[in-house]
Amino acid sequence: MKAAIVQDKKMVITEVSAPVMGAEDVLVEIHATALNRADLLQKQGTYPSPAGWPEWPGLELAGVVLDMGGEAREKSGFKVGDKVCALVGGGAYAEQICVPYGLLMPVPQGLSLAEAAALPEAYATSYLNLFYEGHLERGQTLYIAAGASGLASAAIPMGKAAGAYVVTSVQTAAQAEKIKALGADEIIVQERESIPDAFARLEKEGRAVNVCMDCLSGEDLGAAMPYMARGGYWIVISTLAGIETNVKLRPLLTKGLHLVGSMLRNRTNAQKREILSSLVRDMWPHLESGAIKPSIYKVLPFAEVNEAQGILERFENTGKVVMTVK
Amino acid sequence: MKAAIVQDKKMVITEVSAPVMGAEDVLVEIHATALNRADLLQKQGTYPSPAGWPEWPGLELAGVVLDMGGEAREKSGFKVGDKVCALVGGGAYAEQICVPYGLLMPVPQGLSLAEAAALPEAYATSYLNLFYEGHLERGQTLYIAAGASGLASAAIPMGKAAGAYVVTSVQTAAQAEKIKALGADEIIVQERESIPDAFARLEKEGRAVNVCMDCLSGEDLGAAMPYMARGGYWIVISTLAGIETNVKLRPLLTKGLHLVGSMLRNRTNAQKREILSSLVRDMWPHLESGAIKPSIYKVLPFAEVNEAQGILERFENTGKVVMTVK
Repeated sequence: MKAAIVQDKKMVITEVSAPVMGAEDVLVEIHATALNRADLLQKQGTYPSPAGWPEWPGLELAGVVLDMGGEAREKSGFKVGDKVCALVGGGAYAEQICVPYGLLMPVPQGLSLAEAAALPEAYATSYLNLFYEGHLERGQTLYIAAGASGLASAAIPMGKAAGAYVVTSVQTAAQAEKIKALGADEIIVQERESIPDAFARLEKEGRAVNVCMDCLSGEDLGAAMPYMARGGYWIVISTLAGIETNVKLRPLLTKGLHLVGSMLRNRTNAQKREILSSLVRDMWPHLESGAIKPSIYKVLPFAEVNEAQGILERFENTGKVVMTVK
Repeated sequence: MKAAIVQDKKMVITEVSAPVMGAEDVLVEIHATALNRADLLQKQGTYPSPAGWPEWPGLELAGVVLDMGGEAREKSGFKVGDKVCALVGGGAYAEQICVPYGLLMPVPQGLSLAEAAALPEAYATSYLNLFYEGHLERGQTLYIAAGASGLASAAIPMGKAAGAYVVTSVQTAAQAEKIKALGADEIIVQERESIPDAFARLEKEGRAVNVCMDCLSGEDLGAAMPYMARGGYWIVISTLAGIETNVKLRPLLTKGLHLVGSMLRNRTNAQKREILSSLVRDMWPHLESGAIKPSIYKVLPFAEVNEAQGILERFENTGKVVMTVK
């Protein structure tokens, strides 16, 4: 089978050996895979696939069940020919993959396989951080950094579906226009108002941020945190804007704030299984009713993998970039 | 009745009006009260009693039940004449106090009222932070800053009783000698090894810190945090060594660390009630068997309140300072 492997910090499509199926595994014919910023780090050599996964990138996919191990056949609830999507530790840039059955989800009714491929990573990351780490409740204020990202395109409608007041941010007014349809209650335009200023204003307006999912971090983190609501959770999921921040400990203490680092990829399969089953239970109905729509910026063929990654590298996309493999 | 009130940043014992009892209240004749660093802040005017409590300091006490409101009589499980100790929002520097019944605890069998007065604040704070905030588990490494403090004199034996490997720190070798009897597995002597160096060493030795209860904070916090164990909790309970710290976000992220601000005093009475009832259930048996002993540095009469506070101000004590009121 074919896979896109890293060679000299570029992606090259080449023949690799077919995956070997274990008892818990489901062999999936990949029809589409979606891109993540982690793929770019993996290409740079700083973020390898965890043990037990193929060495090539790709964290999510949708496709059709080709074969199943004995345990998967008994326990998974899926059968050969089913359409599935999956969250994987690596290896989705390929024609086939073996996935432990707990990491599979059904394709929401009414969605194409290209749309379904764009769900697992962004929806599972958002669900993990909003609900497990952030303890988000109805009526609270949720802040999602980097509103134009693929992740925000899942987190914003998910926050709305959970009854939160959702605030996000973008650099320019033009970007704000592009993401309006996601339904955020407020879009901070950073060329007009800084994140710390916006947090201070929200507190004054009685909308202090309770939960923050932050892929940017850096100096703004420490500067904005003192304006959070009592008991707030600031969840760091990436450090694109800086790897250090100065935390003011008095407001942390008196407000009982939480600063939490959270990655999806390095969790155990058991933890991922729990997150995915809660996600399907709580959010798939919103996708099937059309209340939440997957936000796809562009679909490219697998052969254009370097161009597809280039879109993320140039920060050009709003929403997810998908590649069709079959 | 008499109380010690703040006048010109000194304590003065004077006549005040008797407390007024509500339906939920228990009127307690105070026999002993213990001192906390918060009392010193309150004397400086920066840490007033929360609403609903007397304006004079004092966060804990032991004494005898004198009278009870109707609801307290029905629901508290206590009766007039019972020996009790209590965690209060303020007002324990006095001859009497009214306490909502949920904040009362029985005096552990075999302990004097002076010993019991030294329990509520240190034991409730330790219990809250080790178990509710820190999720401490058997076999984990627990770090307690400022091993000579009254708080550490509760937290160290509590951590040992919970099956943790307990590490604490003091400035000098002489202080280390004084606190040996508390039973910490390791005492870091800061004139020989810095806190960040000690955290790095512990990680190398396979004893990386899982839970940290820190009343010092400041620069050491951000410098030591990267050496914590995966999923660790660093709980800030005071900022005696500095109110800012530079947090390195990569280890926070990849290790899934938590930085949490936690105060006992500003929690709701319902939360305090839950903490106290868990504390009595889990830790009173250890006090009654003698496995844990309250650590009292000195007992002074109420009339010497300024001298008693002076001991804390000069950082002279190891363990709690108690005043006998009756």
